[in-house]
Amino acid sequence: MFYIIGLGLCDEKDITVRGLEAVKGATRVYLEAYTSILMVQKDRLEAFYGKELILADRDMVETQSDEILHRADEVDVALLVVGDPFGATTHTDIILRARALGIPTRVIHNASIMNAVGAAGLQLYQFGQTVSLVFFTETWKPDSFYDRIKENADLGLHTLVLLDIKVKEQSDENLARGRKIYEPPRYMSIPLAVKQLVEIESMPNRCGTLSDLAQHPEESFGEPLHSLVIVGKRLHHLEVEYAEEFAVDRERWRTVASTVYGCAVD
Amino acid sequence: MFYIIGLGLCDEKDITVRGLEAVKGATRVYLEAYTSILMVQKDRLEAFYGKELILADRDMVETQSDEILHRADEVDVALLVVGDPFGATTHTDIILRARALGIPTRVIHNASIMNAVGAAGLQLYQFGQTVSLVFFTETWKPDSFYDRIKENADLGLHTLVLLDIKVKEQSDENLARGRKIYEPPRYMSIPLAVKQLVEIESMPNRCGTLSDLAQHPEESFGEPLHSLVIVGKRLHHLEVEYAEEFAVDRERWRTVASTVYGCAVD
Repeated sequence: MFYIIGLGLCDEKDITVRGLEAVKGATRVYLEAYTSILMVQKDRLEAFYGKELILADRDMVETQSDEILHRADEVDVALLVVGDPFGATTHTDIILRARALGIPTRVIHNASIMNAVGAAGLQLYQFGQTVSLVFFTETWKPDSFYDRIKENADLGLHTLVLLDIKVKEQSDENLARGRKIYEPPRYMSIPLAVKQLVEIESMPNRCGTLSDLAQHPEESFGEPLHSLVIVGKRLHHLEVEYAEEFAVDRERWRTVASTVYGCAVD
Repeated sequence: MFYIIGLGLCDEKDITVRGLEAVKGATRVYLEAYTSILMVQKDRLEAFYGKELILADRDMVETQSDEILHRADEVDVALLVVGDPFGATTHTDIILRARALGIPTRVIHNASIMNAVGAAGLQLYQFGQTVSLVFFTETWKPDSFYDRIKENADLGLHTLVLLDIKVKEQSDENLARGRKIYEPPRYMSIPLAVKQLVEIESMPNRCGTLSDLAQHPEESFGEPLHSLVIVGKRLHHLEVEYAEEFAVDRERWRTVASTVYGCAVD
């Protein structure tokens, strides 16, 4: 059996009981470590699970998945994924590959940022499509995410913006020369995300509280990974009340909610 | 401490390790049982958790939440919720109430239908806003859900439609007479959901494969709760391939994907 197991979002204890049983019973356990990260390191997971974990980088999951799936029709193999297994396309690919090889698969779900974002106090029903924001380079500034946010905004919906993560990436030069030298990991910060948004919008003076966020010190947002939520016009007063707890500036959050969003708050 | 703990979607083993620890350490444990259901009964949860569970109906959670929160500043109290705590508005209310009473709260996340729907093979990025579909009555057929689905469809996005659940509801007559007599639980089936959709659309001959679903025997969809996914035009060929596994009629799924959605499949 090939298990693909969601780990949830925080640490070793966010795995489900069902997931933990599958890990303990598996012959080989892989940890996918390039589409997201937990708040704890691999050794802490290993100590808690009582299992050695094999790190699976992008290369292994995307192009050498047969190595992961090796003999999974005879023994149990587990691939651990931060959040839920269906947050990223890649995990669909490997399940399709397992199916093609006649290997039985089982998915063990867990919380993902796509539902846990509700903790911010915004109703999940009020979110439109989720978008990803990648690191801009000098020559590559893909802007389709902006259209998606605008589609949501035009309907008055919130947008969850997933911020880029670069783990075990090669520089262009090393890639061209075939040198397996990797850059240090990078995680997009909220201020950088907002700057990129404003860069696409090309109207830095009209972005309301986005300008506050762009100026805000990176450290104040805690350790990565970060996600950004852009609030839609259908904002409900209960959302305003709940989310206020997390506002950078509460007074301003309320003022914007009432003057820009027309959302009456006490 | 007031804990609100997601149970995930299937059975007693879908709770997280963190959640299980909180349940075991709590003085009182409530089970919310009207916005969703697990595939197993309360006694099975009690046996596994080693705790007696107090059933919390809508009345208790919405209007008598102070009973649940009683002394939660001194002892640990847990409220168990199917899926994730932020799937329904109600749980925001009780947390706000706890805050107002100065009771510390902790939310323990889990999988929700809003991320686990990815298991169907459709990319979560391609879903627009989620909608709820309630049971129509002779005199009450709210149709705003239809506009939401159309907003998504116009953008080419999929829609997750959450189907109604009626637990411990009174008939109009019993309600009017103040008799605490409750109707048997009802769960909306896929065929009924599709019929209601078609009723709003008022064009039963143009609904494509919806007509198939509406005719399909209810039993073939398994036990409730059910959700319905309406596929958007931005359908990707990998989604077609993955979701085919679940098609009522595979050949037809492929034909529709290619002719209606313009999505080339091998």
